[in-house]
Order: sequence, then structure tokens, then C-alpha cells
Amino acid sequence: MLSFTGKVYFIFPLHTDSEVSARKKTFTEVQAEGLEQAQKTVLISYPTGISKKNILQYVSRHGKINSHFFYEGHGPHAMVEFSEKESIYSLQDVAQIADCSSVPGIPLKSRLFTLTPRQSLSQALDETSVHNYQHPTIPIEDLVQKLCCADSISNQLYSLLNEYQLTEENIKLRFLACSLIQDIARAYFPECVVKPFGSSVNSFGKLGCDLDMFLDLDEIGKSSTPKKTGPFQVEYHIKRMPSLRTATQRILSVIGDCIANFSPGCTHVQKILDARCPLMRFFHQPTGFQCDLTANNRVALRSSELLYIYGNLDSRVRALVFAIRCWARTHGITSSTSGPWITNFSLTMMILFFLQNRKPPILPTLAELKNLADAEDEHIIGGHDCTFVSNPNKINQTENTETLDVLLNEFFEYFGNFDFSSKSINICEGKEHNKPEPSPLYIQNPFERALNISANVNQNQLDRFVALARECAWLLQQVDQDHGRDSKQPWGLAALLVPLIKISKKKMGTRTLASARIKVLLNSLRANSANKKGERAFSSWSLK
Amino acid sequence: MLSFTGKVYFIFPLHTDSEVSARKKTFTEVQAEGLEQAQKTVLISYPTGISKKNILQYVSRHGKINSHFFYEGHGPHAMVEFSEKESIYSLQDVAQIADCSSVPGIPLKSRLFTLTPRQSLSQALDETSVHNYQHPTIPIEDLVQKLCCADSISNQLYSLLNEYQLTEENIKLRFLACSLIQDIARAYFPECVVKPFGSSVNSFGKLGCDLDMFLDLDEIGKSSTPKKTGPFQVEYHIKRMPSLRTATQRILSVIGDCIANFSPGCTHVQKILDARCPLMRFFHQPTGFQCDLTANNRVALRSSELLYIYGNLDSRVRALVFAIRCWARTHGITSSTSGPWITNFSLTMMILFFLQNRKPPILPTLAELKNLADAEDEHIIGGHDCTFVSNPNKINQTENTETLDVLLNEFFEYFGNFDFSSKSINICEGKEHNKPEPSPLYIQNPFERALNISANVNQNQLDRFVALARECAWLLQQVDQDHGRDSKQPWGLAALLVPLIKISKKKMGTRTLASARIKVLLNSLRANSANKKGERAFSSWSLK
Repeated sequence: MLSFTGKVYFIFPLHTDSEVSARKKTFTEVQAEGLEQAQKTVLISYPTGISKKNILQYVSRHGKINSHFFYEGHGPHAMVEFSEKESIYSLQDVAQIADCSSVPGIPLKSRLFTLTPRQSLSQALDETSVHNYQHPTIPIEDLVQKLCCADSISNQLYSLLNEYQLTEENIKLRFLACSLIQDIARAYFPECVVKPFGSSVNSFGKLGCDLDMFLDLDEIGKSSTPKKTGPFQVEYHIKRMPSLRTATQRILSVIGDCIANFSPGCTHVQKILDARCPLMRFFHQPTGFQCDLTANNRVALRSSELLYIYGNLDSRVRALVFAIRCWARTHGITSSTSGPWITNFSLTMMILFFLQNRKPPILPTLAELKNLADAEDEHIIGGHDCTFVSNPNKINQTENTETLDVLLNEFFEYFGNFDFSSKSINICEGKEHNKPEPSPLYIQNPFERALNISANVNQNQLDRFVALARECAWLLQQVDQDHGRDSKQPWGLAALLVPLIKISKKKMGTRTLASARIKVLLNSLRANSANKKGERAFSSWSLK
Repeated sequence: MLSFTGKVYFIFPLHTDSEVSARKKTFTEVQAEGLEQAQKTVLISYPTGISKKNILQYVSRHGKINSHFFYEGHGPHAMVEFSEKESIYSLQDVAQIADCSSVPGIPLKSRLFTLTPRQSLSQALDETSVHNYQHPTIPIEDLVQKLCCADSISNQLYSLLNEYQLTEENIKLRFLACSLIQDIARAYFPECVVKPFGSSVNSFGKLGCDLDMFLDLDEIGKSSTPKKTGPFQVEYHIKRMPSLRTATQRILSVIGDCIANFSPGCTHVQKILDARCPLMRFFHQPTGFQCDLTANNRVALRSSELLYIYGNLDSRVRALVFAIRCWARTHGITSSTSGPWITNFSLTMMILFFLQNRKPPILPTLAELKNLADAEDEHIIGGHDCTFVSNPNKINQTENTETLDVLLNEFFEYFGNFDFSSKSINICEGKEHNKPEPSPLYIQNPFERALNISANVNQNQLDRFVALARECAWLLQQVDQDHGRDSKQPWGLAALLVPLIKISKKKMGTRTLASARIKVLLNSLRANSANKKGERAFSSWSLK
């Protein structure tokens, strides 16, 4: 059970629809700041019953504390960020290694400490006897109840965002976990950096999401620009490898062994080195994160940055993405296991595409972001053009003022009505194209443009998505008619997160949809819609 | 092919019988000095054709050079020891890492460099395409020829010692190899030390012998004496292990992986972790050594120190040990593979025991060395008393003045005559004891006294040793009679190193010896001996 104490605030500030944000940090700034702070941070576990004040008083002997918080992981923990890195050395200087002859162990000195009162016996953690804990999120039933109390669908979406988005503490812990793994990797590669990527930093991460780590070894070569060294050139004699991929695999494998055998609190280490992108998977017990460590995965880092920019351009984007992702997970449209399901990434691309297609557009296309790019924004990675503007402040705010109520409804209508059979989705141009190949769902990879990021999705899963989208569009239309806002029945977004009465969660193709019952529903929906929004394109729904 | 250029001198100085040595270094001093120098040392490979002068000139830009030498390993190499460690940083500062995208490799920065002229293309070493080289020693035929030129058997023994003992350069390379592996291990365990032990440092090492390395992690715990830290005790959160043995295995395994995957020039890595003393075996190409890395092997280190002391007490000791080891290897009494053969260690113990039993004794017993021990010499390791005086200068020189001619002959007579069937050998008391168990050869382990270090030897091998010893005693008696010193036939020690005419090298028990032919030989030997040395104990030879 993980619970944070103290004030909870947000690294991605919440705005109401009308609020104008101050200068926004670039992705690189957020990364650099996070890593910098993490390197000055220690993690301290202590026995239950010691006062937090005493802990802080004691730790502050070693230096000024910049920030801190307490959490219940596997026992009580304090995360303490010092102002100066030297304070860590001061703490390390008084720290002892348990006598290995009485308590056998690997005498590695890290930034994980155990504090025990002098009087009592040492109660250092025995990680073998402990269950892994994961960061919990609010149960869906509680969420539904909470949403029902909101006064509009818009505020329901913001409320869901508030519950699910990463807290500042959680993000700090993610950077710290990276920094601790970086310590392990820097033992051999002092210039390397371990950076978080993916949902931890792309602004769309949900509490409890995995922590993707990127081991960046590229700086090692770069700092050694040829120097004037007289008649000779001096080169390090290095171990040669048959390919860059082999080098990556070897490095990940050995660092994985170090993590598994030396690093306290790293458990369940799995080497997945034959994957397209070789990775090391492990559970980082002190912070409670499931981690994937990769290397040579620079496109993914750039992808995270693109999402970060889209997520921070307009406050509605993240609220809509969180709501739709939550809806999709509730109904089994997305899944935590791999298979024919739509991924979170694909779903997010669909939402971005939808927002690019509002009139006026809420989000610019990737092509437009590329046009705004400076020379320093240019990134060609493995032959793929990953260029786009990195500074979000250079991008004009949208003039679109649609509320989230409208956008949520319109999203379901848009994709309930989309011609998936012949069209592909791409956020580069923000326009439908003819599908280059017959995958049921075709979403162009924004950087590796010959790839379909949703090639895994089968027709059955796509049909379920379409059917549910239509159903939800219909349900949202009912709000004004069927439910008063103080009704005890779930309403608005909350109604979409409970098992739908009219659509069973079991496998259901569009053919089933075309039953008499559904026809009635659709007719009522069309009538409704025509009444409310005039020309909106329900008529083009393809029922096959 | 390894060949040293420049002056070859000796870390274990050669003395003639009468010479009195100056103050002797302790084993610990030799170890500390070797490791200290090795840490200031780099290894540079360069293409054939560059002048050594140019190399030195270039390298000396980075700092004062303390010592250096060139050798042909896998291509030309220079070993350069700087006066200051900072010079290495200066060299590292200008050194580049090959661009990993064009030449994939592990970008580890070590103290192995490749120097290439600016004009030519980089010819960095490609270790995959290279055959391993080993340090060669003089072929036995050449040695025999050389020995024939000496003017006495004593000088034959010193000449053999001169050819076979480790040179100062070779010892420096051994310390350097340890220091490079220490760099790898220190990445995670900054206080650890990798020390050479065994034949590399016990003063009995032959050129080309394996390099035993001891990873000493004990300093890590020791430096962290409990400090006054107020109300709390701070402890590093470390990875717990079920046992010290498991911890050792894990550490060796991971460091082995690092060596295998990151460290340039380390090949053929084998993990032998289930052995009584877990070890990592690998070939260290830049220095050309076959290495065994162990941890928690402190008794072996103490054993090396004991041999070092015995080897340096009297100049005859090493000369005799080298000669008898060479003789034993020539006749297949010892072997480089494990099996029922007498080991070098066992053979050395027999020689030490023999020297303890001269009148007056040439070497003190281990019990006497223990009596001379100070408080600081006290070592109890795993319940075994390994205490003995560490300072060789505290040990009185022997009054025995027998020449090596006599000692060699007497050694063969002594063990040709020894009652192996009922007696055991132990250097602690320097006295025969009754065998505690029926192994053919029983030599008490000097520290783990319940163990027989020659439990592997079978009756057949022991019988071969005895038969050859008798034969050689007889052969040495012939010197004065059959061979003039300018004869073209091998004589003295040289005669013992060629296939013996009278004893075939094939399997031969004492029963075969007791043939009519041998009886004649022995009778002649007895008569001879009685003539020459009067009361010497040939009459007690047991022929069974």
C-alpha cells in the first residue's frame, strides 16, 4: 500500500478551460531538472514508530534539504533531496555496511539507507521476505462516485485527470529510480545518462504506470572530439562487437546482472534481449516501479517529447486523453497484456488526430510543428526525420473554445463514424489517407512513417471499439434528457465507466450491432443528434 | 612470441652461496609496492615500424616516466609506469573512443591504449582475429646445452634459476594485470584490492606460470568503523545473500561478466563457481597471462607469503626448488593437468621439509617461524592458525654451508630412502610423523592441518618418483667418474633433464625396479656412496 503524506501538487499544472498558462518548460528542461534533482536525492527506510520530525532533523545534519516526502512502500520511507550533492557524501561517510560475515550480502554503497535507533537492534530490510507493492490508484467504483459529484462533464474529466495523473512526488521517485540505475551504469560508463521516457514524462502517464528508462551512451563518444595530440592519435583499446545491436545487448545484459546481483531492492530481473529493442525488465522495490531499461531507443525519447508538447499545448488535451484511456481500459479496448488490442499509444494518436480535425483545430499537425523548428530542433535518427519544434512557447494557442463536454461526445461520434475500412490516420498531416495496406486499423507511425503502429489490432477489436464509441455517443446524448445532475445514477463520464447495459462486454462484431434492438437505438440517436447539432455527420455511419 | 628488450634484472636478487643479502622486503611490502606501481602504469600497443624513441617521447608529454619496457605480445607493446597517477588522466584526456557506429564496441575507458601515427588509418586491435600468445620459456634442449657450460652443479642450478625465474618486467606485467582487473572490480567496490598470489609472488614462479588473483573485499567493511552519528545508526541498504559463499559466487560471476563483455583483451572467460574455492578463469591478452580470479581465499595468500619467506631466507632454496621442479616436470612426475600426479606445491613442501632436516637445518620449521611472530603477525583465518613471522630480517641465517651439488644429490637420496609407507611429511615441526590415514603420500597442509595436500597422489605415481629419485642420485654420483666437465655429454643437472637411459618414462613400479638390472645398479651405488660419504644412510633404502 503506497500512500503519500503532505501536500500533493502537480508538475503538469491543471488549468480550467479559460486559464492562460505561463511560460512552459521544454521537455529537455524538465528532463534535465528531474535528473539533476534526483542525483542529490537519497531514499531512507526506517522502522515504524519513529517520528518524521526526528528523521528530518537527523538527516538535515548532513546538509540543507531542498524537498522531501514520506511514503509507505515496503515499510516507511523518506525521500530526501538535498541542496548539494556533497550532503550525500556526508551521509555516506557515516553509513556502515553490515558485517558481511554475520549478515552475508553484497557490500555495494548506494544511495539507499536504513536508519535505525541506536537502542534497538538493526532491522535492516530483508528483501527476500517481502511482497512487492505497486503504486495503487483509486478503485473505479470510488472514481465513479467522485465523478458523479462534479457539476459538468468538463469537470468530470478534470477530476479524473486529477485522480490519475502522476503527482510531483511520484515523478520525483521515477527520476530517482533512473538516477540509481544510472549510478550502476556509470560505474563503467561515467558519461552515460539514464533518462525516463514514455508515460513517466510524456504528460500522459497514469499513477502506477511502468517506468521506461533509456540508457544513453551516446555522450561517451561525443565528448572525445579529436584533440591536437601531436604526431600520434591515441585511442582506447576497446572490446569490439560484431554490431551495435550486439554491443547494446551485451551492455544491457551485464548491467542487468549488476542490477540483479548487486543493487539492493532490484528484483525479478528479466533479460529480453532478442526483442526488436532489447530491454531489461525489473522491479525496483524501494520506489515500487516496474522498470524497463533500454538503450539505443532514441526515437522513443523523441516520441515522448512530441506527446509532452501536445499534452501541454492545451489543458483539454490531457483531460480528454486520460478520460478516453480510462474508458477504453474499463471496457477492455486496451489491455495491459500484448495482443490484438488497441494500445494506449494508438488510442492517444487517434485522440490527437481528432483534435487536429476540429474546426478550428485544437492541435497543430506534426508538419506544422516541423515548420516551426529551429536548426537545433533537427533530429534525424536512424534515417528517420524526427524534427519538430521543442519549445512549446513558440506554438500559437488555438482559437477553438469547445468544452470537454462537446469534445468527448464528438470524439465518440467521430470514430464511431470513421471509415476505418479504407482510410488511415496520421498526425503528420492531420488528414485521412487511403490505407497503404489492409490492416483493420492503420495509424501511421509519426517518425518511422512506413510503419503502422496499430498493425496488431484485429478486425474484431476494431469493431468492438467502434460499437462502444457509438454506444457512448448515444449515452452522452442522454445526459440532458435522462439524468438530473443530482441523480444517484452515474451520469456523464461516470456512466461511461460502468458496465454498459446496452452493450455487453463480450465479443461483439458490427454484425451483432445491426440487430433490430440496435437499429432502434441508432434511429433514436440520429433523431436526437439531428435535433441538437444539425448537420453533424451521423448519416455517414457505416453499418456494413 | 614474447620477447623483452632492454636490461633484464631480478626482483629476487641472485646470490652466490657465500653472499650476504641486504635488508629483505616483507611480502606485504612487495605486494604494496607492486600494486602501487601498477596503478600508475599504462599499456600501449602500436603498429610495427614506429620507433620506440618516438613512443617514449610522445608518452612523456603526459608526465615523468618511472620505468618502461617494450615487448612483443600480440603486436608491439610498451608498458609505461608514470611517476604520478595524474599522468594517466592526462593521457586519457586526449584519448578517443572509436566511433561506435562505424566500429561497434563497448566504450569502456581503461588503461589500455592504441597509438597510431596521424597519417595512417587507425589499426586498432581486433582481438577476435588474433591467436593467444603465451610467455615462452627456453626450450629444454637449449637449457641442457646452457647448463653443460657451467663449471659446477651449483652453478648449473643457479643458471637454471636464472633462465626460469620471473623477470622484473614479467612481475610488473602481473601486477598490472591485477590492477586492470581491480579497476573493473572497483567500479562497484571502490575499496577492494586485487592482489596477485601463488607462484607470481611466492618467489617460486616460473616464466609462463598462471596468474592467481585474489579479490580482497574485506577492506570495505573495515573502513566503516561505527561513528558517532547521534541517535540513529545509518546503514547501507544492501542486497542480502543466503551465505558468504553465495555472495562470493555472485560477485565473481558479475565481475566475470564485466570482464568478458567490457574489458578489452580478456578472452576465454570460464566461470568455475561450484569449486571449493569459486573462481573465474580468463586469458588476459594484453599481458599474455592465463588468470584465475578468486575471492575469500585468504589462506592461499598467507601460503604465498610463507613460501616467499622460505624462498628468500637462503639463496640455495629457490635454486634447488627450480631445479627439482624442472626435473620433475621433465619426467612427468608433475603435470599441468590435474590428476594423480604430485603437484608443484607438494614437491616444494617436500624440498622445504628436506632442507629443514639438514644438519644444521637450512630452513626453520613453521613452528619456529610462529615463535618469532609479533602480535601483528597473528592471523587466524577460518579457524586456522596461519601465524608466522612476516619480517624475514628477524630470522637468523643458517650456519649450514653445504653446496647445491651436495643438496641436490642428498635430496634424491633422502626421498629415494623415505619411508612413505608409514610416515607423513610436515613442515610445521620439520619431523616425520606416523601417517594418520593410508594415502600413499601424506604431506600435512601447513595451515589446514587436518588436510593432506597430496591426497590426490596414487601409489603408482609415488613409486615413479621414488624410482626416479634413486636413479638420479645414482646418476649424480657418476659425475666425477664418468664425465669430464668439458665432455659433450650432458652432465650433472643437465644429465637429469634428458630422457634417462636406464629408467624408461613409462609406468614403472618399485616391483619392476627390483629386477636384476636395478639390483646391480644399486649395489654399485651403495659401494660408491660408502666410498665417498662414509656413514650416509644408503643402507636403509627400502626395496620392498
